Amino acid sequence: MINTITGNKDFIEFYRGKKATFLLALSNTKTNEIPNLIQTTSSELNHLISTINSEFLCLGEVRSIQDDKNYLKYVQTSALITRAVHTLNPYSNIEILNLGLQVKPKLSYFKTYDFDMKESRRIDDGANINALEVFQKAITFAQKFECKDDYIILGESVLAGTTTAKATALALGYDVQDKFSSSFSNESNDIKQSTITKALSRINKNDDVFSILGKVSDNMLIFTAGFILGLNNKIPIILAGGTQMACVLLIVNSILKQMDGRIESSNLCLCTTTHKNDNKNSNLKSIINMCDFKVNSYYANFDFSLSNHPTLKLYNQDEVKDTTAAGASLVYGYLNGLTQEQITLRVEELLT
Amino acid sequence: MINTITGNKDFIEFYRGKKATFLLALSNTKTNEIPNLIQTTSSELNHLISTINSEFLCLGEVRSIQDDKNYLKYVQTSALITRAVHTLNPYSNIEILNLGLQVKPKLSYFKTYDFDMKESRRIDDGANINALEVFQKAITFAQKFECKDDYIILGESVLAGTTTAKATALALGYDVQDKFSSSFSNESNDIKQSTITKALSRINKNDDVFSILGKVSDNMLIFTAGFILGLNNKIPIILAGGTQMACVLLIVNSILKQMDGRIESSNLCLCTTTHKNDNKNSNLKSIINMCDFKVNSYYANFDFSLSNHPTLKLYNQDEVKDTTAAGASLVYGYLNGLTQEQITLRVEELLT
Repeated sequence: MINTITGNKDFIEFYRGKKATFLLALSNTKTNEIPNLIQTTSSELNHLISTINSEFLCLGEVRSIQDDKNYLKYVQTSALITRAVHTLNPYSNIEILNLGLQVKPKLSYFKTYDFDMKESRRIDDGANINALEVFQKAITFAQKFECKDDYIILGESVLAGTTTAKATALALGYDVQDKFSSSFSNESNDIKQSTITKALSRINKNDDVFSILGKVSDNMLIFTAGFILGLNNKIPIILAGGTQMACVLLIVNSILKQMDGRIESSNLCLCTTTHKNDNKNSNLKSIINMCDFKVNSYYANFDFSLSNHPTLKLYNQDEVKDTTAAGASLVYGYLNGLTQEQITLRVEELLT
Repeated sequence: MINTITGNKDFIEFYRGKKATFLLALSNTKTNEIPNLIQTTSSELNHLISTINSEFLCLGEVRSIQDDKNYLKYVQTSALITRAVHTLNPYSNIEILNLGLQVKPKLSYFKTYDFDMKESRRIDDGANINALEVFQKAITFAQKFECKDDYIILGESVLAGTTTAKATALALGYDVQDKFSSSFSNESNDIKQSTITKALSRINKNDDVFSILGKVSDNMLIFTAGFILGLNNKIPIILAGGTQMACVLLIVNSILKQMDGRIESSNLCLCTTTHKNDNKNSNLKSIINMCDFKVNSYYANFDFSLSNHPTLKLYNQDEVKDTTAAGASLVYGYLNGLTQEQITLRVEELLT
């Protein structure tokens, strides 16, 4: 049920039965405003999707969209999976990282870290991020961070985040053109490619890593890279996601190269969802292998083939998208005894 | 599965997956000796019910009644529910508060706090409690109490406790005549009302809160009010129960009024069982709302409709009574991934 992409089974098997703190990194990039770049229920609500994903994950309800009866159609299916796992085998702790949301989630009790960041701009227009500042905030935060559990699962919700991730990886000089777009999603389209092309055209020869990131990246990617380096292998961390988290690893790699540094990465891991097409996992593998350090990575076997629910059937035609830590949550569920059937049933219950 | 009565979902959702210490407050009031006030299997054993509930909860067996084969008929169904949840998803720690038991539970290893209290007298005859002393013992205990878990669930077992609670709320001047008796239980009968009327006739105009409590209350009610004030919002606490715990909140409110004090109550919560009749929950809501401070409160959806067991079917005709923390235990179970089906099956197993 849990399969190895890179490394070996030992890391993930060691965490069987152990307790996780779940950190959810949220940010907005105005890249999501580019017409037809991403498919959502209602594009004028794009800026709220990360916010409501986090509300739904924590509470099982949505507060920032005033459409009480239909709010579920705005919540991403990945968030439903993560909520389902959380209700069946709860995370010990969920904490929110606000990395530049337009609208803060309406939560009390749940710890929300505010980093005084603004949403970033459209990357075709220059993201305009002070990347070094974001990075340094992450380093400081990681160094002070105390984990009461055995490990961290770090998930993200950033709409249009695969576009910024691909642009970032290409801008940093990694040969990922075929590995991100055509293989990892069916979203790839002319708009995505033209957005990335425009973003890349803003990069100059003399740009260092941080100025590249400031132009084509998003706050989550930069912050997460800094967080990993700040943890310095002291707290085990699972990066929850596919291409976006793989991009974070590439950023870490580029920063290390620029600084002539190294990291101990034995406590660093990536977990994602199934890709029906084997080729896709081998692409993810080859991206991760572009790093000069080693990373254990895994994917959870899961699809909605056990469901007859029309929404889930539809979802199942594509691969299971991995935002809001769906893949790592499935791994967390499997590590703690849950089955695909239980998770499917609970997602169906959430939809009723 | 968990529904909000007052406040919002955030408090209870925050405790999903977190660990609880379970404190069980036990005391006897000779009010339970009033003929026909309460229905039990064998009224001459009334003074032992709280004791054996605690034995069953901790051990799954009863020691203080010498009827080895039939002991289950003395254990209250609420205690079966709490035991079922404890075997499926255990409390980290169960500790006993002996607030004036006639017979101490026969337990080793389990921590039992002794407060050197005696059972209180029949309230129709004057309960004769040194209420200030009980209150001060609770304050001191709470101030020294160290919780190794994330929160406390405080349950109670006091036979005839709804009678003393109703008398107490009325004596303190709260307009709860219709809200306690006719709506919360089918126990309401002439004997209960005449007992309360007699108890109230002992109250004088000049009685302050503690002299009122000393006449018509029971040790658990007074102690729990003191415990809440002694904790001072520093340790999150779930009061496990319906009307009795609502009465505790009213006591806290009256003490604060008398002392011209205030409390921060963000870490104070009440959890109870389902009431089939919606009206009952709205009554509980209105009692809680009589407090000048805010309290989050919830009820667990649960009944024995999934069971064919004759005892449980019978029980199901009435609402699920909430003593021995049945309601909060159901909430605790649901927060940690249990389902109504699992709990029902386990209760059935306990009965065989």
